[in-house]
Amino acid sequence: MAFKMIDSNDIQNLCSMIGDEERVLVGEYIKEEYCHDELGGTFCTPDIVIRVLTAQEISDVMRYAYEHEIPVTPRGAGTGLVGSCVPVERGIVIETTLMNRILELDEDNLTVTAEPGVLLMELASFAEDHEFFYPPDPGEKSATIGGNISTNAGGMRAVKYGVTRDYVRGLEVVLPNGKIVEFGGKVVKNSSGYALKDLIVGSEGTLGIVTKAVLKLLPLPKKSISLLVPFPSLKQAIGTVPLIIKSKSVPTAVEFMQREVIMDAEEYLGRKFPDNQADAYLLLKFDGASTEEIEKDYQGVAGICLEQGAYDVLISNTEERNDSIWKARGAFLEAIKGSTTYMDEVDVVVPRSQVNTLVEYIHSIEEEAGVRIKSFGHAGDGNLHVYILKDQLSDEEWERRMKRAMELIYSKSRELNGKVSGEHGIGYAKKPYLFEAEDPEVMNLMRGIKRVFDPKNILNPHKVCEE
Amino acid sequence: MAFKMIDSNDIQNLCSMIGDEERVLVGEYIKEEYCHDELGGTFCTPDIVIRVLTAQEISDVMRYAYEHEIPVTPRGAGTGLVGSCVPVERGIVIETTLMNRILELDEDNLTVTAEPGVLLMELASFAEDHEFFYPPDPGEKSATIGGNISTNAGGMRAVKYGVTRDYVRGLEVVLPNGKIVEFGGKVVKNSSGYALKDLIVGSEGTLGIVTKAVLKLLPLPKKSISLLVPFPSLKQAIGTVPLIIKSKSVPTAVEFMQREVIMDAEEYLGRKFPDNQADAYLLLKFDGASTEEIEKDYQGVAGICLEQGAYDVLISNTEERNDSIWKARGAFLEAIKGSTTYMDEVDVVVPRSQVNTLVEYIHSIEEEAGVRIKSFGHAGDGNLHVYILKDQLSDEEWERRMKRAMELIYSKSRELNGKVSGEHGIGYAKKPYLFEAEDPEVMNLMRGIKRVFDPKNILNPHKVCEE
Repeated sequence: MAFKMIDSNDIQNLCSMIGDEERVLVGEYIKEEYCHDELGGTFCTPDIVIRVLTAQEISDVMRYAYEHEIPVTPRGAGTGLVGSCVPVERGIVIETTLMNRILELDEDNLTVTAEPGVLLMELASFAEDHEFFYPPDPGEKSATIGGNISTNAGGMRAVKYGVTRDYVRGLEVVLPNGKIVEFGGKVVKNSSGYALKDLIVGSEGTLGIVTKAVLKLLPLPKKSISLLVPFPSLKQAIGTVPLIIKSKSVPTAVEFMQREVIMDAEEYLGRKFPDNQADAYLLLKFDGASTEEIEKDYQGVAGICLEQGAYDVLISNTEERNDSIWKARGAFLEAIKGSTTYMDEVDVVVPRSQVNTLVEYIHSIEEEAGVRIKSFGHAGDGNLHVYILKDQLSDEEWERRMKRAMELIYSKSRELNGKVSGEHGIGYAKKPYLFEAEDPEVMNLMRGIKRVFDPKNILNPHKVCEE
Repeated sequence: MAFKMIDSNDIQNLCSMIGDEERVLVGEYIKEEYCHDELGGTFCTPDIVIRVLTAQEISDVMRYAYEHEIPVTPRGAGTGLVGSCVPVERGIVIETTLMNRILELDEDNLTVTAEPGVLLMELASFAEDHEFFYPPDPGEKSATIGGNISTNAGGMRAVKYGVTRDYVRGLEVVLPNGKIVEFGGKVVKNSSGYALKDLIVGSEGTLGIVTKAVLKLLPLPKKSISLLVPFPSLKQAIGTVPLIIKSKSVPTAVEFMQREVIMDAEEYLGRKFPDNQADAYLLLKFDGASTEEIEKDYQGVAGICLEQGAYDVLISNTEERNDSIWKARGAFLEAIKGSTTYMDEVDVVVPRSQVNTLVEYIHSIEEEAGVRIKSFGHAGDGNLHVYILKDQLSDEEWERRMKRAMELIYSKSRELNGKVSGEHGIGYAKKPYLFEAEDPEVMNLMRGIKRVFDPKNILNPHKVCEE
């Protein structure tokens, strides 16, 4: 497909459309960060970056781009890991971080309405300040809500509370042709035609650009406690997870981690973790309305852990201690990144009964693939984050070994009835693996849907399902 | 669009494809019930009814129909209310009630896998027998799971637990071209391409035919109590609901009902309701792991009700009493149906803060529209079931007054930012109201998606978004 190359005439038109020079970046004013995301594996320089303020501005730009067949790539805070926000055909980047207002707290309907550029940490703390709870909790708190919606971000509390899609009630969206439409609303139930709202969530900015989101809130749980459980071995730690799920207790989160990742995090944060003596750990959270409510649940789980050979069960029930543990957990990605020269990641998800099989397998292939691999993740929901580290490998050797490791991991995940991505999305980097994993008929349906929304294929081209 | 008329050659081919004469019905063997659904407003006789046993049979029939451009309408138990399962272009009806096996209970992944013809009541009791909980709880317990998925059925527990879509993890689906595909799986999170699983849910059998569903289960709540709260007036009862939601308590269900509907139910069931003296009632349920856990919640709500003028708060904490109240509630639709000659229904949903405004409005238009109107419904989630009764009106007069009442109700609902259907779907009967409510651009997207799945428009034509 041939897009129009942006020329000085387009730039002039777009500039006068926005009317504020400081929000339109071209040439040397485009900082290097606009050319990649957090992981940096996909790199391309846009012709123009527009820092939009309103849905109407996005609509105007999209309409112009649609008419002139100029590719447009939406971008939030750029914290993605699969290249979704990288303008691989150059053209226009629409950057939404200035659309960062929380528009309404509706206490009668238990919803909050936010612009896409609001950061997750801002939204979460706004909710808490009003005694409400926004459950989705990915490690990356400086992602935008728009970005979270675009990948259907999950996070640590998905075990009990589900993922971003479960908290999106309504969306305002600019379509590729520039029209502004609404999907869903403040209603709790909706069976009025196809689930377009649910389709936009997780579509990684390829079907439309989210300009406003009505999000569901829950009452803030009054009590929470965390358990840090050291185990002699990874096998024992991760082997305990299916037993916890099967016990019908309902933890909010079940994370697993290994000593070396904890030590990376200690170095990165300059702060000690409560314990770093054991080989592997489970970190669990329970929340509820009262201590009594959660006590039974967590005591049962503590018992299971000890039966499975845990050294101890460290209970953390003060906000301060909880905070310090979960902050360390939230820093794992950055910490691992800091421990090597470069890395690539795998975000597979498998049925949770298989999470131990997959973790053990990944651990076993380091030698075969000839690379260091670190993993941690959401053991309770079967979603692992696996990092393959470049260290001192030559580019060529890295490419070879990394691909081999990826192939092994994705192929094992398929064997276990897993999926390519649990929460980071497909973007640009994971397309080959999605194509390999899914029935060609299913990929055809996705491409068909893409063409319905974007017949000229100008919005975030070459992502998710497009060659 | 012109479909092929089924001829004796087609019938012969389809018969030999199935190879079991008893499961292929034609001519006088097609019972009248196959020509309509529960409400009966849409009526059309199919040319052939095939009672399928396997996904492969559905695939074979669909492939044949696709090749020959014969319309196909899927049908479960026929308990729908908007004509979704009525073969308005005649052709083939694929009836799934014989695909009624529960295939697997996976206690490690907390899922149950079922064929589409399993009845909701069978699934719910199967889950309970194994100490699990399948939360979606529409009043109509003899609907099939396939039907519940097709309309994204909600039910009474949606206030706390959400709707059918929230419990569908994976689907096996036969596409209009006959191919069998899978969407989702047993994974808890999934960000691997567009949300096709979520799109199929609620598509009312227009995009594919569900042949297997992997459903999420929860641990069975150990305790539940119900509160039956009599109020002097409808206005006071329904006006209390927004205060309950705002109080941040989390009831499982909040239903409202009026005396005359209760009396219909008493007559229909031949059994007394615990109380029928007050004008209006709220019926609430709370569940949790222990009595203590739910006590605080329900005591707070009881207090709010009494402050708002409730006569009393009748607490029901035995299974037997709970059962009798909720069975009566489940029979409301049938009871109202039995109290008149014919009726039509409205299944609007509004933001829950507006539910009192809408109920009061509906109550106020009986005179203006010149028809009796009865309503009850899911006050806690803003979803009302409103029944317009024909009584002794002439057909002509009925048509005129019913349409007037519908227009008034849907228009008020739009004004309150509501949606046409909360859980019954659009089907054939509610299309005009969906077209009126939604942006034409949105309807175009829906039709575009329909064409992607079904380019020949043979699967359940003229439903949901198709003229």
